[in-house]
Parts: sequence; structure tokens; C-alpha cells
Amino acid sequence: MVPAEQLSIPERVALITRNLEEVIGADELPGLLEQGMTLQHYIGLEISGRLHLGTGLMVMQKVRDLQQAGVKCRILLADWHTWLNDKLGGDREKIRKIGMGYFQTGLRASLAAVGGDPNSLEFIFGSDFYHHNDRYWEAFVDVCKNTTLNRIVRSVSIMGRSEGESMDFAKLLYPPMQVVDVFMLNSHIAHGGMDQRKAHVIARDVANALTIAPMRDSKGKVIKPIAIHGHLLLGLSKPTEWPVDPERLRELRTQMKMSKSKPASAVFLNDTPDEIRKKIRKAFCPPANEGMDFNPILDWTEHLIFNNQPDGLFIERKPENGGNIHFKSMESLKAAYADGSLHVMDLKSGLAEGLITLLAPVRKIFAEHAEMMAELEALL
Amino acid sequence: MVPAEQLSIPERVALITRNLEEVIGADELPGLLEQGMTLQHYIGLEISGRLHLGTGLMVMQKVRDLQQAGVKCRILLADWHTWLNDKLGGDREKIRKIGMGYFQTGLRASLAAVGGDPNSLEFIFGSDFYHHNDRYWEAFVDVCKNTTLNRIVRSVSIMGRSEGESMDFAKLLYPPMQVVDVFMLNSHIAHGGMDQRKAHVIARDVANALTIAPMRDSKGKVIKPIAIHGHLLLGLSKPTEWPVDPERLRELRTQMKMSKSKPASAVFLNDTPDEIRKKIRKAFCPPANEGMDFNPILDWTEHLIFNNQPDGLFIERKPENGGNIHFKSMESLKAAYADGSLHVMDLKSGLAEGLITLLAPVRKIFAEHAEMMAELEALL
Repeated sequence: MVPAEQLSIPERVALITRNLEEVIGADELPGLLEQGMTLQHYIGLEISGRLHLGTGLMVMQKVRDLQQAGVKCRILLADWHTWLNDKLGGDREKIRKIGMGYFQTGLRASLAAVGGDPNSLEFIFGSDFYHHNDRYWEAFVDVCKNTTLNRIVRSVSIMGRSEGESMDFAKLLYPPMQVVDVFMLNSHIAHGGMDQRKAHVIARDVANALTIAPMRDSKGKVIKPIAIHGHLLLGLSKPTEWPVDPERLRELRTQMKMSKSKPASAVFLNDTPDEIRKKIRKAFCPPANEGMDFNPILDWTEHLIFNNQPDGLFIERKPENGGNIHFKSMESLKAAYADGSLHVMDLKSGLAEGLITLLAPVRKIFAEHAEMMAELEALL
Repeated sequence: MVPAEQLSIPERVALITRNLEEVIGADELPGLLEQGMTLQHYIGLEISGRLHLGTGLMVMQKVRDLQQAGVKCRILLADWHTWLNDKLGGDREKIRKIGMGYFQTGLRASLAAVGGDPNSLEFIFGSDFYHHNDRYWEAFVDVCKNTTLNRIVRSVSIMGRSEGESMDFAKLLYPPMQVVDVFMLNSHIAHGGMDQRKAHVIARDVANALTIAPMRDSKGKVIKPIAIHGHLLLGLSKPTEWPVDPERLRELRTQMKMSKSKPASAVFLNDTPDEIRKKIRKAFCPPANEGMDFNPILDWTEHLIFNNQPDGLFIERKPENGGNIHFKSMESLKAAYADGSLHVMDLKSGLAEGLITLLAPVRKIFAEHAEMMAELEALL
């Protein structure tokens, strides 16, 4: 790997922004890099049970990219947000244990698996960050003063929670706390899935008005956090509505994302090779003539295999089925699927084996932490 | 004055609950007193400029009553709430100076003027109370989890702020912070004007659900704060709508309260005797045949003179106007006003001189703090 300081600014920008759904403020990135600043990244993760590939691989492959571009990466283990959202029964002791143990271990192992540097990844535990942190709550008021009720309600709705005035008020503390996290962690790059965009847009919109914790560049000028939003992996299950109305595709994609609340839709870091094979085998994979856009198998192959393995995907096949085949690009694989020369079962098998290989170092680390894993199972 | 420990429980209850608009949870009071608990009181005051008689005399006369009943009284100098409400331009340094200086001095002097004990009155400065107070913010989340958005919005509206979704979100932090103040200060008695009732009702409604800072009696049983709501003095100005539609009286009373934002409607602790005489002379005082309920002069005479001066009101009159007269009860004074034997100018003059006498010790204290008063004028 080329050290970041030997990369050109366009190369660093390319690493930071590649394989994302959206970058807000991309134009501001070269200017900050030209100042010679060490850019700081953060992503907040709720501690809500087993880690799935959306977090373990999708988030971590972007962290790897950022590290390669010379960005300092930090994970906020967001125990307060988990509590606000009533995850893990709102049991704060349980949340802390899983966050401090399984989450840190699993995320470091995942980052290593996709070629990042687990040692330079920093973890910040929410409770520790907020501890005796008066300035945090002052900044919280400051953010709230610069945001309307209406906007907060809309941010919460997009996060998949029930709308309406009967919502418990704690749910509304979530977006402004998220915005404060960005600024108090001095995060030049705020990272999340597409479901975090509303909070990040608020952060950018209030940036110039903040009095408590504005973020500044090396010249002292106020800057807005650059928001990077990763792809949300499709769940493996067949959508409740099929075929999907193209008009509603965007809306349904969020609903149809892989989710740990629907275990059949997701693969977890902890899954055994056989569990992975079984889930992929049963997964929804419509024929090419029904459209290629809403196919979780193609989606995973692109985002988990091709974005992590420069060598592409190697699929073993029996000689009578055409023999082994090596796809060097997603385009060539899609073309083969479209023209029928790549059979659905072979694609699934190739994806499953590719994932099993990718996750092998993670399983190894978990196996070395049998006690932690037993504790996790006892807590969930 | 009889020491509280020599009073019977009904006598103490009578002191705590007298001259109020409302007591919520009055039935719970004897039980707490019978346990031999030292009850704790609190009232939160925004630091929003000059103190008027609504705070200086109305609040302090209730504090005096509570002290006489053996209740420990505390004033929360609510600088954060002042900031949330954008009072004093949201200038936190200014808010602190006025709170620490003028407010404490003025309120202690007022309490002494109405016969309370300024030395046993405790002041708690909001920022100091919240400083490094993690449990406060945990309790804040706990309260928010047990309250709906709808309810918070309704509490804010009643406080006289603009409704609607364009409201800045910080305004919505006010009611739950107020509720947390009650519990974190372990306030068995929460005190405010009628405009605080919605927040206090929330406090009572969440009391049983709280996990972080529930309030308990001496037997460890969860208790709800007893809410006491004082009368809001009428402003001295003529209402914009006169005569007042009896159906709308309750609604208009809140709008027509004395307010420092309408200086002609209010008398301030700092006013000179001549300013007091002039304001009272110009005040709205409708003749008895237009109704006695919405007459600020009668209102002030009852709540400021009769509730503070056991001797009642002494009015000097020229012999040709009937000579000096001494009213020992509000009833006799109202009867004389109703039958025309007490002239409006004599009533106003009697009220003005009564207030001037009552406030004399406050003016004396202010005169002894010329530097503080000059600083106040410079800051406002």
C-alpha cells in the first residue's frame, strides 16, 4: 500500500469518496487537504446486538479507504443513542458490555479483514465522551437553538421511527445529539449510511451559526463537516412488493435494507460458513429479465466482493456447468448474469465462498475470544 | 412568630397552601409532614432583567409562608432557562452577573421585607448545578422517554411562546429540564406561577416511571412533587379588550399579567416612591359597576397589601373627603369601593403608600449596593 503522504490530493480525494452513495461538500475536500490538515473522520454506531455485514464490511471498507487517504478514523460507540432508541431493552449495562467487548473486537477484526489498520482506529465510548463534559450540553443547546422542531421531527421520521406527536420526546434528542457529536469530535468527515443524511445536513446547515463548538480549518475559518453516505446493503429476503414500482424504488430501498431485526435478511460476522451458505442459497435473486437493480445477490457481490477484492470473484463450477470462472469486474459478471451464461446457483455459491473467505480472519478472532462470545450470547 | 416545630400539621398545611391559585397534590402533604420529613421547596426563576413585584413580593411571600411552616426553601437562578428563552439577548455572561448580584440581593431583601428569613434561603445557580452533573443529563433522557412530543409542545405554548413547528428546538428543552430540576433538587414542593402548571403536571405524571432520579419519602416510597401555583398579578394597563368577556376571562388573565416587557404594566423593586405613585395613579381601575374581578388596583391591594400586612391598609384622606380610614380586611375595602364610599384616587393613593412602605427595606439595601445597581443599569 502506498503511504498517504505519497499520494496526490486527487488520489486522496478519490479514495475518500469512492464507492459511496453520496458525498455532500465534496468540493470542499481538496481545499482542506491542500492546507495540510490531518482530516478527522467519525462514524457513530449504535450498539444494538450482533454486527452484520453492513457495519462490519461496508462501514469498515470505507474506514480502510479513509485510512489509506491519511484520514484519522474514529468510531463513536454510541451507547446513549442506543439507549434513546430503546435498543437492547435500553439496558445501559448490557449496552456498555457489548460495546466495550464484542463491538470493538469485531470491528477491529473486520477492518483488518478488508485491509485497514485496526491499530490506528480510535474508539470513543459515548458515556465516556459525555462524562463531565459541560461543553457538550452547551453545544447541544446551541445546535437546538439553530434548528426547528419541524426539522428535527423530519430527521427522526427518516430514521425509520414512527412519526407523530405521540412519539416519546427522547427520540427527538437523537438528531441534535448526533450533530453535536460531529462538532465536539471535530469531525471534518461525518460518515454514515444514507439514513443519516438528514442529521448530517443539519450539521452542515448550522455550522456557521454555532457559538460553542464551531469547527475551523487551519486558517481559523469555519468549516462544514463533509458528509459521506455509504450504500445500504439490500436485505436477502424477497420484498413484500414485487416487482417494485420504479417510482417507489428509492423509498423501498430504505425499507428493504439488510436489518438485524430480520435475521433472514442479514449475514452476521458471527455466522458460520454453513450458515452463510444457507442464507445466500435461500436469498431472493430475481432473474435478469425482472431487473438487475433490486437483486441483493448482485448488490452484495458488487459492494462486498468487488469493492474489497481487487482480484474480483472466482467461481468454482463443475466442468459440465462451464467450469471455473473468474470475473475481474462487476460489469462482466452482470453481463454474464444478464445473458444467462452465469447461473443463479453458481453466482450464489461464488458469493457465499467469497464472503466466507473474506470473513475468515474475523471468525478466527472470535474463536480466540470464546469467553466474550459466550457473554454476548448470554446478553442477547 | 411561632417556630414551625410548635405548629400542628394542619397549621403547617394551612401556611403552605394559603393565598395560592392552585395546589396539586394537597392531599399528599399531611402524610409527608407526619413522617417528620423536612420538606424541600424550589422555585426556578429566569434571570430576565429588573425584578418586579410578581417575583419580589408574590413569590417571596409564599417563601415566607413556607419557611414559617418549616419548609427548606431554595431558589434556582435558572440561567440556562434564561438562555433557552433568549432573554437578555441570550448573553450568558450578562445573565450570570445579574443572577449572582442583583437577583440574589433583591430577592433576599424582598423576603426580609415580607417577614421571611433571608439567611436560610438557599440560592442555586443553574450552571453550577449542571456543572459536571452527568446524572442530570441521564435524568433528562429519562424524563424525555416518559413524555410525548405532543405534551412538550403543549407545555411550551402555554408559556406564552409562539406555537408551531417553526419553533426553535431549544425552546422544547425547557419543560423537560424544568421537570428534571424538580427531581434532581429533590423538591417535595415545586412552586411557580399558574403558567408553570403544565411542566409541574408532567413532573407528577412521570414521577412513578423515573429510573434515574425518582423522589422518595422517608419510607422509600416514590412520591410526586406537590405543585403550588401562585396568583399572577394583573398588569396595571387597561386590557386591549374591555369589558372582558367573562367566557374569556381565564385566557385573558394570563395575557394581562404584569410583565416586565410592558413597563407601564409593572412596578419594579427598583422603582422610586414617586415612580410607584405615578404608575399607580395612571393605572387602570374600572368603577365597581364594571366588575371587581379585573381591577388591577383591587388585585394588588388584596395580594400585596392584605396578604403581607396583618394590620390591613391605612388610607390617609383629607377631612373633607371623609378623613383617614383603616381597612382591616379586603372584604370591607371591596364593600366600600362597591358602595362608592372609597374613591378611586384614595384607594390608589393608599395602595401606593402601602407598597412604598413595604418596599422601603428593599430600597435601603439597593442604596447600599450602588455599584451593583450601576452595573445592572449598564448591563440592561
